[in-house]
Amino acid sequence: MKRYERLAEDVATLIRRGVLAPGERLPSVRQVSRSRGVSPSTVFQAYYRLEARGLILARPRSGYFVRDQARRLLETPGISPVRGAEAAEVAVSELVFSVLDSLQDADTVPFGSAFPCPGLFPLPRLARSMAKGLREMGSEAVVAGMTGGDPALRHQIARRYVLGGVRLPVDELVITNGAMEALNLCLQAVTRPGDLVAIESPAFYASLQVLERLQLRAVEIPVDPRHGVDLDVLADRLGRWPIKACWFMSHLQNPLGASLDESRKRALYDLLVEHEVPLLEDDAYAELHFGPQPPWPVKALDEAGLVMHCGSFSKCLAPGYRVGWVAAGRQARAVARSQLMTTISPSVPAQAAIADYLQHGGYDRHLRRLRHALESQQQAMLAAADRHFPAGSRVTRPEGGYFLWFEFPERVDSLQLLRLALAEGISLAPGPIFSATQGYRHCARLSYGHPWTARSERAMVRLGELLATF
Amino acid sequence: MKRYERLAEDVATLIRRGVLAPGERLPSVRQVSRSRGVSPSTVFQAYYRLEARGLILARPRSGYFVRDQARRLLETPGISPVRGAEAAEVAVSELVFSVLDSLQDADTVPFGSAFPCPGLFPLPRLARSMAKGLREMGSEAVVAGMTGGDPALRHQIARRYVLGGVRLPVDELVITNGAMEALNLCLQAVTRPGDLVAIESPAFYASLQVLERLQLRAVEIPVDPRHGVDLDVLADRLGRWPIKACWFMSHLQNPLGASLDESRKRALYDLLVEHEVPLLEDDAYAELHFGPQPPWPVKALDEAGLVMHCGSFSKCLAPGYRVGWVAAGRQARAVARSQLMTTISPSVPAQAAIADYLQHGGYDRHLRRLRHALESQQQAMLAAADRHFPAGSRVTRPEGGYFLWFEFPERVDSLQLLRLALAEGISLAPGPIFSATQGYRHCARLSYGHPWTARSERAMVRLGELLATF
Repeated sequence: MKRYERLAEDVATLIRRGVLAPGERLPSVRQVSRSRGVSPSTVFQAYYRLEARGLILARPRSGYFVRDQARRLLETPGISPVRGAEAAEVAVSELVFSVLDSLQDADTVPFGSAFPCPGLFPLPRLARSMAKGLREMGSEAVVAGMTGGDPALRHQIARRYVLGGVRLPVDELVITNGAMEALNLCLQAVTRPGDLVAIESPAFYASLQVLERLQLRAVEIPVDPRHGVDLDVLADRLGRWPIKACWFMSHLQNPLGASLDESRKRALYDLLVEHEVPLLEDDAYAELHFGPQPPWPVKALDEAGLVMHCGSFSKCLAPGYRVGWVAAGRQARAVARSQLMTTISPSVPAQAAIADYLQHGGYDRHLRRLRHALESQQQAMLAAADRHFPAGSRVTRPEGGYFLWFEFPERVDSLQLLRLALAEGISLAPGPIFSATQGYRHCARLSYGHPWTARSERAMVRLGELLATF
Repeated sequence: MKRYERLAEDVATLIRRGVLAPGERLPSVRQVSRSRGVSPSTVFQAYYRLEARGLILARPRSGYFVRDQARRLLETPGISPVRGAEAAEVAVSELVFSVLDSLQDADTVPFGSAFPCPGLFPLPRLARSMAKGLREMGSEAVVAGMTGGDPALRHQIARRYVLGGVRLPVDELVITNGAMEALNLCLQAVTRPGDLVAIESPAFYASLQVLERLQLRAVEIPVDPRHGVDLDVLADRLGRWPIKACWFMSHLQNPLGASLDESRKRALYDLLVEHEVPLLEDDAYAELHFGPQPPWPVKALDEAGLVMHCGSFSKCLAPGYRVGWVAAGRQARAVARSQLMTTISPSVPAQAAIADYLQHGGYDRHLRRLRHALESQQQAMLAAADRHFPAGSRVTRPEGGYFLWFEFPERVDSLQLLRLALAEGISLAPGPIFSATQGYRHCARLSYGHPWTARSERAMVRLGELLATF
């Protein structure tokens, strides 16, 4: 990363964290140049970049200011207690499917979408990589590639782990049909029907569906929107219940956007080792952090082979290609064999495309552009919520990803809100699909994964009006 | 199909069935011209084609003769009784994996291979279809295509059903990660752990692994190499046991190559209806029939929605792409939802490639070439077995596919044979991996899916010598 890029990232972090408040004047170019020991032109370049990202504003003869958009009128929600401390049978699938079905219409404003706008991905470049990959692979490899995954792709993924400070043997890696297959295979490797699994609350709805499908019981651990899963509650539950696995998102948790900081990651790992409980670390959003450095996963600490770290290209590069992976620790062999008995392998051409793209396509450049697009879209949605949503609404401010979690006044029923919004061509993800016990009735997840337009702004206005009717 | 093609197919069928014996003189061009009411040049064209396929031979001034290769020195095996009539726990997976692992070496003569030679597939043409499909699809469709499968592909598959005489509503179709995912999802839709499932004996080893993985118990029904699964035994078992599903291959059963004729398909369907038992009809080899017409599946009779008909492009067009499907009858919705919770969808680019190829690539032309190649390779392997394998060996003569099933003298141990053969660079699939009870110790499946070369011939000589050491 160049000097001016690093400076820009540092300032962006200060703005995101509220250290530099909306409307506040930035230090002058001269001050920064002196304090950081860089040339004035480096500071100019950094500020120019922040201006292009919509984070700051130049006022003639006055200097640079944090944009008003980044105000913090709506508060951040606190941690919500989980309803009932008991382990719950999961029966949320019908609700989830009926909601997901209702979100299918391509013409709605896609605040309910699970994917970012596909226009943000380098799909034509990937298609060229696929043609090249297929040409270079030869016909024998199309069959051979079904065993153990594309070697070039495995190498590229292992390389990114090393660059991120995680050493792991390549043979821990299993390439999968997206992170969803990885998570399914891992969970099946370490549980039997009826077992208890600790999950987050609120949780990614698909994890609830998987538990239901495998007849597992959920022990819901509350998540703090700022700090991640509540480790005190987890420690208590691990001590009292025969929990067979934890399934957590350590970064940019869906739907809250919460991340565990370094000390909490260490504390979580110590708990796993103490209780000999494996962790499914679902890290599908890892590459969508807004900060300058990718956070390291709990997997980085994993001497014991207890962590199954699941990643994916679906949210950051190649939606629809269905390529993900797991670094499965001591379960690697069981997971690979289980895959051979169910789907055999992910699509070989899709693997070849991604392997070639990672090597030649400019992945890191794409990721920087994508993160900046998402960051400015987040600012736009936060600002619109500030302006249009009723007083007493709360919202998260995640440091990455493309979801905001809203906690509306208690009187709001988000399933009813969804019906009203869909009638007006606006989708959203209502709170109850994120909970085994169908809580969070007054909450909703909104996606800012699509470019912000006048239509998005009008949709926020209309949502605000609908919220006021409750 | 043109007139001369139809005539060639009719003669090929007579040769395959032994009506025209090896060495026998074919009717003269004049005779055939008169009896079929076609021009002499049509007969010439047909005979020319059969000569090119290696089935007949022209002798100057004597006419055309059935090639000597197609002799029948080795007998066809009979039906083998299943060991023990009880339902069996399945525990064959470790054996299967250790055998499959040993077959990985790319340098062996691949008689143990599960796939035909990839050189027989139009992979460069498919790669062009993929590039075109991706270009025409646009970015939104890469995400949208994850729900319900590529519409163009669904349409093409439904069209082939209609052409084959099967009417089915398009919404019964679920596109899957190969037939393996389809079979897994279907079985999970209709069973719970501990349930009984009727399977064939010998059976495709992967079906045994799936039963083991899902903790299902196998009721093995013997298969007659000529007539397919024994319906009397099946009727008896259905009457006595609470069987929750049947999993059969109605055509070119793996490993025996047996197919059910029309009356047996009807009888099987009547049994399903009488006992209200669903059928997983695994039809992965349907397109590899050597006869002129594709056989219709049991699914064609399925008024009741009991049949889940699973197909795949992996064995006939696009290995490694991992695209198959199921026409799932009344389970279609359950199967689609179960997929959304496990792998979400098959790779969208792979689906687009196959959709474009089916529409523009010349699929039927490719299939004709592939069938003819396999048919002549079968002749070559049968002839080599005749020459080199010990007296008392028996072999199947399937009307399609790329597997022969050998029954050696009782003293032969095929697991030991495999070890000896591998040491000499020859692979094969030993009998015990095809049985829940690890029977068929003196049997083996050999693939003729690769072009026949001097090396193949030498490998058969060497196998014959190894067989003689038992």
